[in-house]
Amino acid sequence: MSRPKLNVAMIGYQFMGRAHSNAWRQVARFFDDAPYEPVLKVICGRNAAEVEKAAERFGFEQSATSWEEVVARPDIDVVDICTPGNAHLPMVLGAAAAGKTILCEKPLANSVDEAQQMKDAVEKAGVLHMLCHNYRRAPAVQLAKRFIDEGRIGRIHHYRGTYLQDWIVDPEFPRVWRLEKAKAGSGALGDIGSHSLDLARFLVGEVQEVSGLLKTFIDERPLEDGSGTGVVDVDDAALALVRFENGAIGSVEGTRFAPGRKNYNRFEINGSTGSLVFDLERMNELECYEEQGPDSGFRTILATDEAHRYVRAWWPPGHIIGYEHTFTHTVLDLLIGLAEGSQPKPDFGDGLQNQMVLDAIERSAASRTWERV
Amino acid sequence: MSRPKLNVAMIGYQFMGRAHSNAWRQVARFFDDAPYEPVLKVICGRNAAEVEKAAERFGFEQSATSWEEVVARPDIDVVDICTPGNAHLPMVLGAAAAGKTILCEKPLANSVDEAQQMKDAVEKAGVLHMLCHNYRRAPAVQLAKRFIDEGRIGRIHHYRGTYLQDWIVDPEFPRVWRLEKAKAGSGALGDIGSHSLDLARFLVGEVQEVSGLLKTFIDERPLEDGSGTGVVDVDDAALALVRFENGAIGSVEGTRFAPGRKNYNRFEINGSTGSLVFDLERMNELECYEEQGPDSGFRTILATDEAHRYVRAWWPPGHIIGYEHTFTHTVLDLLIGLAEGSQPKPDFGDGLQNQMVLDAIERSAASRTWERV
Amino acid sequence: MSRPKLNVAMIGYQFMGRAHSNAWRQVARFFDDAPYEPVLKVICGRNAAEVEKAAERFGFEQSATSWEEVVARPDIDVVDICTPGNAHLPMVLGAAAAGKTILCEKPLANSVDEAQQMKDAVEKAGVLHMLCHNYRRAPAVQLAKRFIDEGRIGRIHHYRGTYLQDWIVDPEFPRVWRLEKAKAGSGALGDIGSHSLDLARFLVGEVQEVSGLLKTFIDERPLEDGSGTGVVDVDDAALALVRFENGAIGSVEGTRFAPGRKNYNRFEINGSTGSLVFDLERMNELECYEEQGPDSGFRTILATDEAHRYVRAWWPPGHIIGYEHTFTHTVLDLLIGLAEGSQPKPDFGDGLQNQMVLDAIERSAASRTWERV
Amino acid sequence: MSRPKLNVAMIGYQFMGRAHSNAWRQVARFFDDAPYEPVLKVICGRNAAEVEKAAERFGFEQSATSWEEVVARPDIDVVDICTPGNAHLPMVLGAAAAGKTILCEKPLANSVDEAQQMKDAVEKAGVLHMLCHNYRRAPAVQLAKRFIDEGRIGRIHHYRGTYLQDWIVDPEFPRVWRLEKAKAGSGALGDIGSHSLDLARFLVGEVQEVSGLLKTFIDERPLEDGSGTGVVDVDDAALALVRFENGAIGSVEGTRFAPGRKNYNRFEINGSTGSLVFDLERMNELECYEEQGPDSGFRTILATDEAHRYVRAWWPPGHIIGYEHTFTHTVLDLLIGLAEGSQPKPDFGDGLQNQMVLDAIERSAASRTWERV
Repeated sequence: MSRPKLNVAMIGYQFMGRAHSNAWRQVARFFDDAPYEPVLKVICGRNAAEVEKAAERFGFEQSATSWEEVVARPDIDVVDICTPGNAHLPMVLGAAAAGKTILCEKPLANSVDEAQQMKDAVEKAGVLHMLCHNYRRAPAVQLAKRFIDEGRIGRIHHYRGTYLQDWIVDPEFPRVWRLEKAKAGSGALGDIGSHSLDLARFLVGEVQEVSGLLKTFIDERPLEDGSGTGVVDVDDAALALVRFENGAIGSVEGTRFAPGRKNYNRFEINGSTGSLVFDLERMNELECYEEQGPDSGFRTILATDEAHRYVRAWWPPGHIIGYEHTFTHTVLDLLIGLAEGSQPKPDFGDGLQNQMVLDAIERSAASRTWERV
Repeated sequence: MSRPKLNVAMIGYQFMGRAHSNAWRQVARFFDDAPYEPVLKVICGRNAAEVEKAAERFGFEQSATSWEEVVARPDIDVVDICTPGNAHLPMVLGAAAAGKTILCEKPLANSVDEAQQMKDAVEKAGVLHMLCHNYRRAPAVQLAKRFIDEGRIGRIHHYRGTYLQDWIVDPEFPRVWRLEKAKAGSGALGDIGSHSLDLARFLVGEVQEVSGLLKTFIDERPLEDGSGTGVVDVDDAALALVRFENGAIGSVEGTRFAPGRKNYNRFEINGSTGSLVFDLERMNELECYEEQGPDSGFRTILATDEAHRYVRAWWPPGHIIGYEHTFTHTVLDLLIGLAEGSQPKPDFGDGLQNQMVLDAIERSAASRTWERV
Repeated sequence: MSRPKLNVAMIGYQFMGRAHSNAWRQVARFFDDAPYEPVLKVICGRNAAEVEKAAERFGFEQSATSWEEVVARPDIDVVDICTPGNAHLPMVLGAAAAGKTILCEKPLANSVDEAQQMKDAVEKAGVLHMLCHNYRRAPAVQLAKRFIDEGRIGRIHHYRGTYLQDWIVDPEFPRVWRLEKAKAGSGALGDIGSHSLDLARFLVGEVQEVSGLLKTFIDERPLEDGSGTGVVDVDDAALALVRFENGAIGSVEGTRFAPGRKNYNRFEINGSTGSLVFDLERMNELECYEEQGPDSGFRTILATDEAHRYVRAWWPPGHIIGYEHTFTHTVLDLLIGLAEGSQPKPDFGDGLQNQMVLDAIERSAASRTWERV
Repeated sequence: MSRPKLNVAMIGYQFMGRAHSNAWRQVARFFDDAPYEPVLKVICGRNAAEVEKAAERFGFEQSATSWEEVVARPDIDVVDICTPGNAHLPMVLGAAAAGKTILCEKPLANSVDEAQQMKDAVEKAGVLHMLCHNYRRAPAVQLAKRFIDEGRIGRIHHYRGTYLQDWIVDPEFPRVWRLEKAKAGSGALGDIGSHSLDLARFLVGEVQEVSGLLKTFIDERPLEDGSGTGVVDVDDAALALVRFENGAIGSVEGTRFAPGRKNYNRFEINGSTGSLVFDLERMNELECYEEQGPDSGFRTILATDEAHRYVRAWWPPGHIIGYEHTFTHTVLDLLIGLAEGSQPKPDFGDGLQNQMVLDAIERSAASRTWERV
């Protein structure tokens, strides 16, 4: 277990900074097969006082305020980008130019054009790059993937993805940055619908065309500083019908207007011989139906056995894991990819592809017709 | 309880004949407030031997083979039409012309034009007419309606309706009449999607426009008589995005290709202050979320209290009722409407409106654009 | 289907009278293989006006006030006893002496001695006799029985039975007859604990010894007539540890003090290779676990397939049945037993055996030691 | 956040060592209000090579093989004992004598006598002591406690606790140390039944008397070294009826013979106006019933809101936490107790009291009568 060290620089220190830093701290504590010992070298943000506090809180050795300097430091091996999507492009270009391994929080970018630039940059630089769509790495989602790959539900006919939340259903909830198109790119579509879509691509296949609907229920909200109201120019809810290249059909939905649904990222997949259901609020479970005559039924598999992917590092059966573990698994696979010289998925190519589907949904919502990806 | 008698004639004796005849037999046995004592006078079908057996099985006094004669009999008060949709039009016209009260199984017709003729006929004749969309009358669905009407979930933003079954997912399942457009009109769309749609109209409001997708996964199937294969010219699955007149948005789906889903007629409704979820496979339950701070949660209401609509006639709390009871409730309300001289819902106007939405979905699936109802 | 007729006399017309009369009316309407056509000949009760109303409501040809005369009538084939347990003995003795087939509502009696007399009487008379423990005949319970008989859960180690209700948790709920020992025999123990126990005997085997606990939380309640308060001298809750003859162990509980549990008759059975769970509030479902490695899980079988016992007569998969159907199934098996000359179960021997276990629980609660049955 | 450091020594490095060490590492990374920064100073075990590996894996600065030396080191502030129960006594006596704060994994001891000695020792030494019954600190369990304390379910009538696992149901599973009385003290009783019991004491109150049943289904198992078979002299399953001092009644059960139940630590509590249900396999949820008329129902509260205890440090609503977080919460409260000079619960007094109830269950199983605690 005497592992080579790997110096990590993180840009951003809010919600995602907290989740990612935990992953870097935990991965070698639990995974004996993690090929590197990450060192939390430096965390970077614009507010010096705040980022210094974050360094102590998250366990980084240093803090910094210039990402340009950080990504250029010769002692840094990995740059982990945890800022909002509109800030990713220059950071990725800078880190790629400096030859760093890059982990980037989703969405890769706020536009297809930016995503394309980023993909081109990392490929040209020949650096390992990974997009953090962490839900792919819940053990129960991995189990769904295995079942599909093993043919246990047959040919896929239907995907039904909904990501429901309720945190802005109150009209008095303020106009935060996530409700501004200039910063967030889109609303529920890019924030949560994109997760549902990424799982669709991971589990079912590439999307060929879409029919989209975007809706903003509350057009104007109080500003956070109390100085009046501001316009909401992103979608509160996004729905799409989708046709996959392999003939499957489905629907994808993201909304922040579903009271009682806190983090209800649910999918149901129907194949020719079985079905699978997952819900992030019960993320240790996979519901599975395999057709075996009249005594068949949906069974709830608790994906907490050491045979289930990633569980080997954690606890005995029935001892569940939580949300942040999916980030630890992401980091683990990045480390393994690095050690083996292979490019893990999802990568920036996936980020581009996801962005293209989101773009098609937006185009379709405007044109009122089906649009190809 | 000495109630006037009401003579019932039924046309059709298959699945729906069984469900409807049970309703006529049971309604006065359980509902003390049923204002009439139905008499199962005559059941009508084309095969004399079969319909005679059905008469004995279902408890009818007589059997007959000419529906034209039956609807014209002066001793008949109510004509209950349980045949497939393509046969409804002449029967309704005949019964209306004879001044009979009419109960008609859904779909009212296989086309908007036919539905319009039927609505015109009963209105012109001034007879009481009712469409049997029985799921409206599950006590838990009535409870959902009451919660909405009382404003307990606020303004409705989302409707998410799926009716999933799995009975034809096997490619060797034969090409039965329900898979022929000439007889069935459409596939999953009209058969089960129409239920999901009728519930949407009942609970949310009128549909303004739709974007539809129809899919046939298996184009050809063995014929029932073993003489080869036949073409499937109806949809195996139907999906639609919908915009309601009141600003709500939603989706409606019907499929027969969802392994493990036997009769999964589920809806979720999200309002501005709460949510409701119903699943026909657990039809005595309504899940309800009412926003009340951090200790809120979806609660499962067992709609088996005497305070819940229709339950007064049945059993104590927690003693559940079954599928066929929804038909008994339908017949009850027809009897009450008759006694009070009022027209119960859903009526043939609803049948027409439902047909217009189904028609818009079909048009949209062909045009690949949104279509207005 | 031209079946011989069978004349039924019913004694009692309350809750159970309503459930049993429905069974007699429905059995031949749905089961083509029911070998008789029951005729609801006469219903009997002490209050002439009330019983006459019941006759009309339930569909009996006649009403009567003397059970002694009714059980002696030569035109009567079956006597169905739906009165409280303390009234059963003379009726059974009378009906047996008259050579009638007897269906008796549970509990067979309020004491072991009475139960023994009744068993002796029917055996001496050589008449078919059946005890109405209707929950044995829910299709999902039958499925549990089949799984056990097929060895699919292996050797049984544990039975965990709870029957929870909440209807008297309010101290202001009046002192009804079910709370008087003289009439009801016992409280939750005999009323609902007995169901849990009967299922234990049906599914696991005979009980060898018990350790019991009886508890009365509210000792005094308002009288129904408003004339003051009365003593509650039965148990509000009854718990027992049990050892079965075959080495399994378990627990049985009945309580009327479990808020939110309306009719929660639940059992869990753990065998050496699998487990089964049933809950009467979702009586169409059986949860089943079969050990098959890390991807195993509890699966929910919807016992609504025509392959499931009794379902052949009802509806397609996923169309659930209700509480009263279990009585129809009981009557069906009585008719089949009568036609085939065989004695169906549970019979009066089961009634006696059940009473002996209840008696042991009461003795144990008093002696504070384990007691043999 | 510049916090004083606190040097931790841990004895034992297996399953519990892994869980506890994670808690010490994480507490100050997530809880800004943790008053100390724990330093993982030294980990101690008998096998030098193994404990050295554990030090690296878990992030300890040093490893050691003599617990006697470790507990005496002047630089150590806290001794965390993670060894099996039969080894606790001397370690606690040693650490107490050295004036250390002590965290001890449950069970405190394998006998009442040992537990009493340990309680006496820490009280005499005046050191802070805490017993690690971690499940008390799941946010959903804390929510149950708050609801009870606020009177929201009224006076408690029933506690129903079951802790079900299945890991030794296979007779070929070897005779590990947990199946030897000399090492483990008891079987399911002390290992998991004790958790159910501790929750009962935490949520309902002190136990007055018990009627117990212990059962060993498999008396002999293969030895781990393949050298033959060994006797199992502990219980495979333990059941008890309990009477609480406050008049509530209940049952407590632990078994390792429940196929499909991996870590099913479930309780149901029925009060006079409501009920609560918890299941460790879905440990982020609490089911709650509050009586509010016919539209009441059990609601599932996702205890992931920042208002729920301990959640402030973790993630937004609906982002669940896992098993190990309960240890982090335990350590947090130990740190707060230390800073505030107050003794947190559960402490060694609870350990003694728990042991006395387990002892009464064993006595009762032997005497076949109720036994007082």
